[in-house]
Amino acid sequence: MNDPRPVGVFDSGIGGLTVVKALRDLLPNESICYLGDTARVPYGPKSSETVQRYAVELAGMLMRKNAKALVVACNTVSSVALPLLANKFSVPVIGVIEPGARAALQATRNRHIGVIGTRATIRSGAYEKALRATDNNVRVSSRACPLLVPLIEEGLLDDAVTDQMIMRYLQPLLADGIDTLVLGCTHYPLLAGAIARVVNRQITLVDSAQNCAHAVEEMLDRQSLRAAPPNNAQLYVALTDAADNFLNVARDALELSFGEVELQPLP
Amino acid sequence: MNDPRPVGVFDSGIGGLTVVKALRDLLPNESICYLGDTARVPYGPKSSETVQRYAVELAGMLMRKNAKALVVACNTVSSVALPLLANKFSVPVIGVIEPGARAALQATRNRHIGVIGTRATIRSGAYEKALRATDNNVRVSSRACPLLVPLIEEGLLDDAVTDQMIMRYLQPLLADGIDTLVLGCTHYPLLAGAIARVVNRQITLVDSAQNCAHAVEEMLDRQSLRAAPPNNAQLYVALTDAADNFLNVARDALELSFGEVELQPLP
Repeated sequence: MNDPRPVGVFDSGIGGLTVVKALRDLLPNESICYLGDTARVPYGPKSSETVQRYAVELAGMLMRKNAKALVVACNTVSSVALPLLANKFSVPVIGVIEPGARAALQATRNRHIGVIGTRATIRSGAYEKALRATDNNVRVSSRACPLLVPLIEEGLLDDAVTDQMIMRYLQPLLADGIDTLVLGCTHYPLLAGAIARVVNRQITLVDSAQNCAHAVEEMLDRQSLRAAPPNNAQLYVALTDAADNFLNVARDALELSFGEVELQPLP
Repeated sequence: MNDPRPVGVFDSGIGGLTVVKALRDLLPNESICYLGDTARVPYGPKSSETVQRYAVELAGMLMRKNAKALVVACNTVSSVALPLLANKFSVPVIGVIEPGARAALQATRNRHIGVIGTRATIRSGAYEKALRATDNNVRVSSRACPLLVPLIEEGLLDDAVTDQMIMRYLQPLLADGIDTLVLGCTHYPLLAGAIARVVNRQITLVDSAQNCAHAVEEMLDRQSLRAAPPNNAQLYVALTDAADNFLNVARDALELSFGEVELQPLP
């Protein structure tokens, strides 16, 4: 098998580059087209209907780039639009929720899992549903952490103010007795170090980006869609509006290299 | 003169309600149609071209509501789209920058003015231009404060983390020797109390919302557009996406009363 078409990856903005990083590390032969909707970021506070409409537009733009699969590198979109996308498009569609939920169930020993994310992701209850679909007895404690994305986008990855907000958000989950924490937003892997530092006891962090990349690998194998080595694998990054400061934050923190960012205005 | 048509007010989101509050207090006979683009908020990190396109769309929606004047209750839009709007629409267009600059020049004694705002507003240099157009010798120290809007939208108006961020942002301006500070973002009046508390010395705060309302009053008088009392003045609030938590924060903090919020999806 040799399918050199790119994997299409999209997100509300730049945060999904954590998934791109995980995909590059795991699948170095696969070309990737990344599309970030910086013209309308963030999706977290928006309604499900609006997020669904935007997701269909972005997926359509990647399909016109000949994507062989669609990776929804955004928890907010994954939590409200996955069935719709799977229905509308003929290629496989993979989100971040189910892979994260599966990994959390494998990691927990006390069957008590914490989930943090944007307000939209937490309100959707998508992680609880995915966790309970596999294990009806699992306990889930969820918390929306709306200030973490702005703090990350400002590059305050190692900062006293960020540490205080992390503590404030996580305190109730720790008091509840979770032993595993799902980082339910593709920005959050950039704070994995800070979270581990603040939570100074044994909590397993589940990184949705890494688990999503593993799910993509499995799917490509199952559907015979892998690119055969040696493939001149490319990474294209397109944004719907000019990149701001956070692109540099993410590029540096992830040590991700890509060429000129293409500006791809919305229709 | 009696022109009962509403004043059209728009903003990237909910923050412009601080201008609505100032208008209601100053001009209780004027009906107001407010339109907040919550489907695409925030504008601060977006490019000038994108902000201009969005502003023309919103202004067009208010014109279809029969607005007799357009008030741009958003510093980001005011800083990049005012000439374009004035050119495209036949009614008077008023922004927040010039009124704020005028008030700051009246307030300063040492001719050294500080300006805080979103990244887009500060990058535009709009306040410097407006200040220097009147007084070529004024000194201006500017600072983008991108985390203040998320903190305000979370309702952390009286919070240690917010105070720390305010201090961090304002320290360089205070060290520079400003005696007057323009709150160059329509969200910031909600933090006027916190800023005054943190800056524990004599700095005059210039509230762009109040000064914008005064400019609207002058313009309505000059152009004979006032509604005559008794007018059954209404306040309509429409948003392009379902309101989130911040609508309640603003409504409570501003003690603003309005009926059902209309959902007005973008075309």
